[in-house]
Amino acid sequence: MSGSVSPLAPKTYADMPPLRGVRMATAAAGIKYKNRTDVLMMVFDRPAAVAGVFTRSKCPSAPVDFCRANLAHGVARAVVVNSGNANAFTGRKGRESTRMTAEAAAKAVGCREDEVFLASTGVIGEPLDATKFSGVLDGLAAAGTEDFWFEAAKAIMTTDTYPKVATRTAELGGVKVTINGMAKGAGMIAPDMATMLSFVVTDADIPATVLQSLLSAGVGPTFNSVTVDSDTSTSDTLMLFATGAAATDGQAPVTADDATLDGFRAALNDLLRDLALQVVRDGEGARKMVAVTVEGAENDDAAKRIALSIANSPLVKTAVAGEDANWGRIVMAVGKSGEMADRDRLAIWFGDVRVAVDGERDPTYSEAAATAVMKQEDIPVRVEIGLGNGRATVWTCDLTKEYVEINGDYRS
Amino acid sequence: MSGSVSPLAPKTYADMPPLRGVRMATAAAGIKYKNRTDVLMMVFDRPAAVAGVFTRSKCPSAPVDFCRANLAHGVARAVVVNSGNANAFTGRKGRESTRMTAEAAAKAVGCREDEVFLASTGVIGEPLDATKFSGVLDGLAAAGTEDFWFEAAKAIMTTDTYPKVATRTAELGGVKVTINGMAKGAGMIAPDMATMLSFVVTDADIPATVLQSLLSAGVGPTFNSVTVDSDTSTSDTLMLFATGAAATDGQAPVTADDATLDGFRAALNDLLRDLALQVVRDGEGARKMVAVTVEGAENDDAAKRIALSIANSPLVKTAVAGEDANWGRIVMAVGKSGEMADRDRLAIWFGDVRVAVDGERDPTYSEAAATAVMKQEDIPVRVEIGLGNGRATVWTCDLTKEYVEINGDYRS
Repeated sequence: MSGSVSPLAPKTYADMPPLRGVRMATAAAGIKYKNRTDVLMMVFDRPAAVAGVFTRSKCPSAPVDFCRANLAHGVARAVVVNSGNANAFTGRKGRESTRMTAEAAAKAVGCREDEVFLASTGVIGEPLDATKFSGVLDGLAAAGTEDFWFEAAKAIMTTDTYPKVATRTAELGGVKVTINGMAKGAGMIAPDMATMLSFVVTDADIPATVLQSLLSAGVGPTFNSVTVDSDTSTSDTLMLFATGAAATDGQAPVTADDATLDGFRAALNDLLRDLALQVVRDGEGARKMVAVTVEGAENDDAAKRIALSIANSPLVKTAVAGEDANWGRIVMAVGKSGEMADRDRLAIWFGDVRVAVDGERDPTYSEAAATAVMKQEDIPVRVEIGLGNGRATVWTCDLTKEYVEINGDYRS
Repeated sequence: MSGSVSPLAPKTYADMPPLRGVRMATAAAGIKYKNRTDVLMMVFDRPAAVAGVFTRSKCPSAPVDFCRANLAHGVARAVVVNSGNANAFTGRKGRESTRMTAEAAAKAVGCREDEVFLASTGVIGEPLDATKFSGVLDGLAAAGTEDFWFEAAKAIMTTDTYPKVATRTAELGGVKVTINGMAKGAGMIAPDMATMLSFVVTDADIPATVLQSLLSAGVGPTFNSVTVDSDTSTSDTLMLFATGAAATDGQAPVTADDATLDGFRAALNDLLRDLALQVVRDGEGARKMVAVTVEGAENDDAAKRIALSIANSPLVKTAVAGEDANWGRIVMAVGKSGEMADRDRLAIWFGDVRVAVDGERDPTYSEAAATAVMKQEDIPVRVEIGLGNGRATVWTCDLTKEYVEINGDYRS
């Protein structure tokens, strides 16, 4: 946990309502540091439907493997999250650790081990001592409350400088339902799935298959469109749970991912976007946020790859840190993306200031106006490719000396 | 040009011999700054065979377009290189500028415009005023000398902290031939062709088609295997010229890229590697060089992609800057590469210290020994994938606060 809060942190945090059907509590299990909250337990007293998306890393953590296997079952009763140790690249010991943790959680909650989900964040490659969990899970299962979201979000922070929470409501099946979410993540953030840990719970009654469909579609333009440092974590985990408590209010059953879910879908996607942007705004060392919009690409996928090429470029990100309207580096990043581009049709804007058009500097371009945009905390960059209708927006932060400092001595 | 020389600079520079058949001279044309050498002219009094490889950027500079078009002709009489302005993303003005420069050079040398080659380095997006060349090229064509390599290398520096030169000799067709080369480049360096400007000249008599074959093969494990910041320049240019002066010594003619060239090929590739490593060692802000070797991948291409994923990872590079033997980040980078990998077969070494084996921390691993390696200036990293026979080595440098500083205010 860094000493000072990101200048891009929210001015106020969302007032998180209780979420019916999920109880949470935290404890200090001494996983890496003494006397620091490092375990979060979520308990669903009645079985919740569950969906998840995970890192596409070829070297995923043991908890990611464990969750993937359990997801087929579609039912969640407990989630155990720890910080301080990622249980990644820990070999057989890692698998043994997930098994022991799940066993302890299942016993504490009174459920099956395949109804338990696990997530770990922290250092890679150190064995995670599962015996540290056994002492605390019984107590957590008993102590959990529904009104614990903000504290839970704080408990899963690592290099985060502020907790990330969001809440939305939607109409579904004739009743009002609530969606609460939290996320953690500040470094090793790249859009190749969920890019960090995030847990979202709704009291809506939605079957697991529909939940998975909603989540898989929702992650693309949200969590998979943010990048801090292009480095994809071994542990990325985004899970969505539906407790079904709204059924008692008379919510009409949901059977498919169709138009009856439009309101819920919009609220869910809005919440996912909110959490994803909070992750970028807490990017390690970040002082500015950049929204890169690419329009006129061959197709939406090409637009996203170009936008990511810009958003991941160290030279673009250092220019932003230096408040330098260096659009030449945007051209460079478009060129290296490998996507179709016609240099002589490119146009580039910082905010409303068009700095380049028809493949050269805009003749009417004002350096002072462009620099004024660069001095903002939030910097919109727009690139018009001029070839088609493909469009995408990707969010990133600047690359500062503080990023180098934070990551130059993280382990020590 | 940065104030202090990279700590990784060569202790001594190669003693560059004259190269028969090419004369060089430099001038201060005031392209960006007054009273600073910013133009280099190379003149081949007799037509030289020429080969080239260029950036794969979709937004190449005007000089790159110009050279690509002339390369088909296979003959070079003059090369004009300028710093201070890349003539990239300059639209119609950029093309007009290359045409005017080539016209002036052709007139000065007495050759055709398609026997002129151009390279520009510096800021992207500013129009390059070609009239600045017209005054100096006549004088440069007359003044050039064969013994000017070190001064020429200095003239093409931008953010470079030291000039990059190398020389080799080889036996070819019964006589001794010489190869001289120079390069510039410190940032916007990524292996997607030549990654900077480099000019190599031999007095051997080798036809252009054979020269191209040699160069295209030689660039892969050399210039295309170095990366400073993953950002591919719009201007990358590597050209190889053969003046043919050795024919007067009785060099037997070369007709194909075959075994008679083995000695020359080895010397050329060794020189290309030497220059490429000098570029990395002058990486912006670099204090350490890292050689990343990946073995046991599915095939050589997969090995190179994994090695690049490691070498381009900001988290790996900041760990190196912090002298932190953080092999977990190596695992992360292997995982995000997208290439086949079996987490439980991975092994990782820093120098001779094996830190991970069989997908977990090496039980005999000594943190002190690994840290001692990280304190070195040159850090070998080796990753065994355990799947096949694919092998590749890629060179990079660390990511320091100085990189951020240099690139946060480059334009200003």
